Amino acid sequence: MIIYKSNGSWFGHVSHLTTSYTMRRILLAVGLLGVYSVVVIATIKFLDLHRYLQVDSTVFSLLAVILSIFLGFRTTTAYDRWWEARKQWGALVNNCRNMAIYVDSMWPPSDLEIRHFMAKNIANFCLSLTEHLRKGTQLDRLVYLSEEEEGYYATKDHIPNFIALRIYQRIAEAHREGTINEGDYINIKAQHQSLLDILGACERIKKTPIPFSYAVYLKVFVTAYAVLLPFGLSEQFGWGTIPLTMLIAFALIGVELMGEEIEDPFGLDCNDLPTGDIAHTIKRNVFELLEDRAPAEEHRREEYEKVF
Amino acid sequence: MIIYKSNGSWFGHVSHLTTSYTMRRILLAVGLLGVYSVVVIATIKFLDLHRYLQVDSTVFSLLAVILSIFLGFRTTTAYDRWWEARKQWGALVNNCRNMAIYVDSMWPPSDLEIRHFMAKNIANFCLSLTEHLRKGTQLDRLVYLSEEEEGYYATKDHIPNFIALRIYQRIAEAHREGTINEGDYINIKAQHQSLLDILGACERIKKTPIPFSYAVYLKVFVTAYAVLLPFGLSEQFGWGTIPLTMLIAFALIGVELMGEEIEDPFGLDCNDLPTGDIAHTIKRNVFELLEDRAPAEEHRREEYEKVF
Amino acid sequence: MIIYKSNGSWFGHVSHLTTSYTMRRILLAVGLLGVYSVVVIATIKFLDLHRYLQVDSTVFSLLAVILSIFLGFRTTTAYDRWWEARKQWGALVNNCRNMAIYVDSMWPPSDLEIRHFMAKNIANFCLSLTEHLRKGTQLDRLVYLSEEEEGYYATKDHIPNFIALRIYQRIAEAHREGTINEGDYINIKAQHQSLLDILGACERIKKTPIPFSYAVYLKVFVTAYAVLLPFGLSEQFGWGTIPLTMLIAFALIGVELMGEEIEDPFGLDCNDLPTGDIAHTIKRNVFELLEDRAPAEEHRREEYEKVF
Amino acid sequence: MIIYKSNGSWFGHVSHLTTSYTMRRILLAVGLLGVYSVVVIATIKFLDLHRYLQVDSTVFSLLAVILSIFLGFRTTTAYDRWWEARKQWGALVNNCRNMAIYVDSMWPPSDLEIRHFMAKNIANFCLSLTEHLRKGTQLDRLVYLSEEEEGYYATKDHIPNFIALRIYQRIAEAHREGTINEGDYINIKAQHQSLLDILGACERIKKTPIPFSYAVYLKVFVTAYAVLLPFGLSEQFGWGTIPLTMLIAFALIGVELMGEEIEDPFGLDCNDLPTGDIAHTIKRNVFELLEDRAPAEEHRREEYEKVF
Amino acid sequence: MIIYKSNGSWFGHVSHLTTSYTMRRILLAVGLLGVYSVVVIATIKFLDLHRYLQVDSTVFSLLAVILSIFLGFRTTTAYDRWWEARKQWGALVNNCRNMAIYVDSMWPPSDLEIRHFMAKNIANFCLSLTEHLRKGTQLDRLVYLSEEEEGYYATKDHIPNFIALRIYQRIAEAHREGTINEGDYINIKAQHQSLLDILGACERIKKTPIPFSYAVYLKVFVTAYAVLLPFGLSEQFGWGTIPLTMLIAFALIGVELMGEEIEDPFGLDCNDLPTGDIAHTIKRNVFELLEDRAPAEEHRREEYEKVF
Repeated sequence: MIIYKSNGSWFGHVSHLTTSYTMRRILLAVGLLGVYSVVVIATIKFLDLHRYLQVDSTVFSLLAVILSIFLGFRTTTAYDRWWEARKQWGALVNNCRNMAIYVDSMWPPSDLEIRHFMAKNIANFCLSLTEHLRKGTQLDRLVYLSEEEEGYYATKDHIPNFIALRIYQRIAEAHREGTINEGDYINIKAQHQSLLDILGACERIKKTPIPFSYAVYLKVFVTAYAVLLPFGLSEQFGWGTIPLTMLIAFALIGVELMGEEIEDPFGLDCNDLPTGDIAHTIKRNVFELLEDRAPAEEHRREEYEKVF
Repeated sequence: MIIYKSNGSWFGHVSHLTTSYTMRRILLAVGLLGVYSVVVIATIKFLDLHRYLQVDSTVFSLLAVILSIFLGFRTTTAYDRWWEARKQWGALVNNCRNMAIYVDSMWPPSDLEIRHFMAKNIANFCLSLTEHLRKGTQLDRLVYLSEEEEGYYATKDHIPNFIALRIYQRIAEAHREGTINEGDYINIKAQHQSLLDILGACERIKKTPIPFSYAVYLKVFVTAYAVLLPFGLSEQFGWGTIPLTMLIAFALIGVELMGEEIEDPFGLDCNDLPTGDIAHTIKRNVFELLEDRAPAEEHRREEYEKVF
Repeated sequence: MIIYKSNGSWFGHVSHLTTSYTMRRILLAVGLLGVYSVVVIATIKFLDLHRYLQVDSTVFSLLAVILSIFLGFRTTTAYDRWWEARKQWGALVNNCRNMAIYVDSMWPPSDLEIRHFMAKNIANFCLSLTEHLRKGTQLDRLVYLSEEEEGYYATKDHIPNFIALRIYQRIAEAHREGTINEGDYINIKAQHQSLLDILGACERIKKTPIPFSYAVYLKVFVTAYAVLLPFGLSEQFGWGTIPLTMLIAFALIGVELMGEEIEDPFGLDCNDLPTGDIAHTIKRNVFELLEDRAPAEEHRREEYEKVF
Repeated sequence: MIIYKSNGSWFGHVSHLTTSYTMRRILLAVGLLGVYSVVVIATIKFLDLHRYLQVDSTVFSLLAVILSIFLGFRTTTAYDRWWEARKQWGALVNNCRNMAIYVDSMWPPSDLEIRHFMAKNIANFCLSLTEHLRKGTQLDRLVYLSEEEEGYYATKDHIPNFIALRIYQRIAEAHREGTINEGDYINIKAQHQSLLDILGACERIKKTPIPFSYAVYLKVFVTAYAVLLPFGLSEQFGWGTIPLTMLIAFALIGVELMGEEIEDPFGLDCNDLPTGDIAHTIKRNVFELLEDRAPAEEHRREEYEKVF
Repeated sequence: MIIYKSNGSWFGHVSHLTTSYTMRRILLAVGLLGVYSVVVIATIKFLDLHRYLQVDSTVFSLLAVILSIFLGFRTTTAYDRWWEARKQWGALVNNCRNMAIYVDSMWPPSDLEIRHFMAKNIANFCLSLTEHLRKGTQLDRLVYLSEEEEGYYATKDHIPNFIALRIYQRIAEAHREGTINEGDYINIKAQHQSLLDILGACERIKKTPIPFSYAVYLKVFVTAYAVLLPFGLSEQFGWGTIPLTMLIAFALIGVELMGEEIEDPFGLDCNDLPTGDIAHTIKRNVFELLEDRAPAEEHRREEYEKVF
């Protein structure tokens, strides 16, 4: 995620543009369309095909109205997912912090083992969730994992789920043994459950893109529109058709591709959420609260700036 | 549901298009309109009716503005249902998993019978819900059903509701006997109730399409628009009217038909939710948590790829 | 409510159109406007007033943009109410069913009297709510009402509220006597309160239409637009003005009148919710759960098909 | 608030129009713009300035598209506030009624004093809230206030807040004395807290209008648009410019002023919520539930009809 | 935040316009574009380049439709954040007030120390949150801080979080000592947790602006549009192009810059929320409730008027 100061200078950010994979794809598509326009206009000019072409810009205006509604729909739904994902990760920060505070007040101050266990597992839950939403958890990113554990974890499909289960088992055990009382049990169970709810919501956002038909429909329609555009504008604008086609294509293709990008906000793209950094912040907070120190290994900054 | 990688290649998916019932209907309608346009334009050309026709494209632009607002409304409401349904099934996954975890921690580890009972019934609830939202539950899709039970179930109207009642009766019995304590009872009752809430929400989405008047209104208006279109464009565009009419019709009819398809997201259409696979995932999870094994019978993959 | 299968044939439903009061009003208004257009065009033609008329269609296009935004606003807000009302009634089904299940598990199985009391009163709450949201409760629609009770009920203003109070008094009494324990009391009190919340939400939807100024504003604007339309189109389209005026008026008036209809979704109009049938379904469910039988009197199907 | 039957006759309500302060302002502004148009057109005609004016209606169409988006934004946000306020007051009715029911079941039937205290204070909370959201509470609107109390209340800034505190103190006292048990205490505390939440939400709606820049931006833009309009239309429409300018201005100014009006829904304007009547309904309900009678003093109907 | 009476006079506020940093930026940009237009038109006129320019206003109309959709998206999302932030601060007022009420009723009236501790820390939480969301907490803005504490606080990164932890520790201690009972503990813990939730939500709003690509995309597109505009309008409108370009640019740039401003609503801009004043109101309320007096130091009014 590129961090920028909102309300800053108007043009200051444009130079960062090419760092975005999506922006490069947009500019590539616009460039190709420019070449295509040159070919179309040249053909029309040199073969003098004007009298056979009667498409004027009114029809394109009509189609643009319809298109813009659906590009608006595309943008809104993609953004809603992105923002929901952000809310879930914001809630994760709060939940983990609260859970650590509860653990600290529920167990007697002398019980250092449970504090370490909880700090480790809450941190690992967040770290593995980040990876799980990308390409699957890599165990060497987790902290304080004994070799034995690492072997055991490797046999599991769904690491965050497994870690959550371990946390719960420990809480339930303490409850059965009478170490923690009924009120605290109900309280921390609610916190624990919301960890699973956040996990479920993130998986839902990742695994359910916009319905396939809409995605294809928009692409087919935008393509048809862009291909016809030079024919429609050629008579009126001559060579001016080329920049105009590119400007309009920039608007249309850009919206579709940016929608696709932010729809899955858990990756490492320019607009994706800094989930890796949020997870490391949680790790640091949780260890600070429960063990009064940060974990040994240093966090190597991810490709994007730290946010939270 | 067709699974695709968002943010992939622009044209890679177009080849899958014809696997969608709705897309085939759209293309059929567009094709028919193309034939109709040919007839209209030919008639006008050969009988030289141009001087009697004065409809120009300005009026169509005006009508398109109004139409696009309502197609936008159609799309948004249909999508909202689809997304709400997805949320409900996401919540179902979480709920069932949590319920299994609670059951495992509430009953003594030695009580294998209750674990089997719960795993079977939670799994069957989800499996029967999938079918219930399609064409009614088929009992042979449920797992571990004794013959006696099968006969009894067959007399029931509403299988998911009946299974939920059985689960509750068992919990209430255990509570009366004092096997489970007050706190656990309140906790698991909340989980149980959200099963029923999800069931109710899915039934609501399935049984209440967009108000009838809106559905008819849109169809009448789109039809009138498409029928008049060739007359309006013929003077200005001649034979070019035919592809233009088809492109505009593609936009309008496509939106209406895609809206209709995703409005009921529980079927087996190309854009429907993979409820069958989600139910099987839940089954596997629940048995893993409670009996540490998957149920005997293998799940034959449904027509669509696995998602969750 | 007309029940139809979404995603069915395109034209199959059009024949049902005239069963809708609103659709008849729309067609009447469109017809009147057609007659008006004939008069306007004829006057202009025969008195040759064309040179005094300079209104062209560009201005109407401009006005249509503004209008369409507000018709979109009208449609969205009306639909939101309709859908919220549907959600409330869906929640009512779930709530009543849960309440019956709780009653069944809270009182000893031998206590048949409380089961009959609860089944009767929950059913009557829903039946009277249906009527209350139409023209006021008619007591002969309620079930198992003794003559004495009927006389007493008749003195009450707000029957659903009074029935809810009776249910609560009975629960509170059982709690005071110690028949039901603390946990169950808290549980069923929450269920009871949501009955009242649903009642309040339905009354809110029914009693607060869109602000008066908006309703009038839209009507005045649509009327002015439709009255000016034939003047604006006459020069360009001649007699063709008549069908065009009617088509545009169909779009504008239809949206406003359909919005008005679905805004109050509790009546017996073509698009209204089948609240009567939902109430009868609840009645049947509740008696099945608590007395294992349906109530004696048969439900005469309402004007619309059964839905839930 | 003007009460009207939705889905009634199309023109029946137009006669009420002039009772609305906002409508009068709209019509005044439209009238002034009409005069201005006459002056502009006359100047252009008599000085024959046509050849110096080249503004055509295309540009106004373009600007109208942008404007309509923001007028739509204005309308939607204003309506959302209005509707949220309505929901809060609907919740207030339910909450107060529930609180009265709880009070009635929590204290022994013989304790008439607490019943009177609660009925009086719940009623006064609502009555003072109505006034507080207008111009500040007038103490003579409250019921059963002893002279001593009136003097004490007069020293307080925020009457509804103070009354809520008194209710809470009484509940906490009863809890400390052991008159009410733990479960009831938790229950009624939740009800009490939602009184304060409703108060806070209403204050938020009242005190935070749309951001200042947007409000000014829209006014400046609408004014510039309306002032330029006659110049743009004069060549094409001549004297017809005058009614056209007025119709367009009616659309634009109307939306802005209606948005302003419903944004603060607690006043006595034609579209404001009938908070006064809702408060009196609550008063009557609460006294009926707790003292089986209405309070002595009669409610003089406010300027608008009774709604709830 | 500029406080204004909604529904006031149309032009009364325009004079305040220049007090807004954003408005000044908008006017500056519009002015620069005016100069640019003069240069463009002059060049075209004097070099007689008209015959090489064929861009007409139709294309700009088409682009404006697309632009307006995205400016609408920009405005809506920015406003949603602003309004969510307002809701969070409204909830903060209620929460703090409730917490003070609970503290007052939970501890024996004689315990003045806990009352002072809570009043001080709740007030300091809000005061430090205001600063934290601007440029970081300045310790001299907090109240009743002993020198020792000030030194200790200065070592902390995240002051509001640290204060919240201190409050919680005190409550947990009282619970362990048995000073407060189970029910009160659960109750106040929920209040405490919502303090942290509000903190998290505000940080989320502040630290996650609209995705970078959208922000840049809009700026690039608006700039391209504005730069091309004078060429497109020059033939048709001549020198009239200059005011028209400025008016259109006012619409487009204004929306983008206002969106940027209200997106981060915690600063001291003209449209930002009066978080400083809200925090001081909370301080006064909390001290009034718990110590019956306002804190010693006087609040120097911030740059904007008091609101809450």
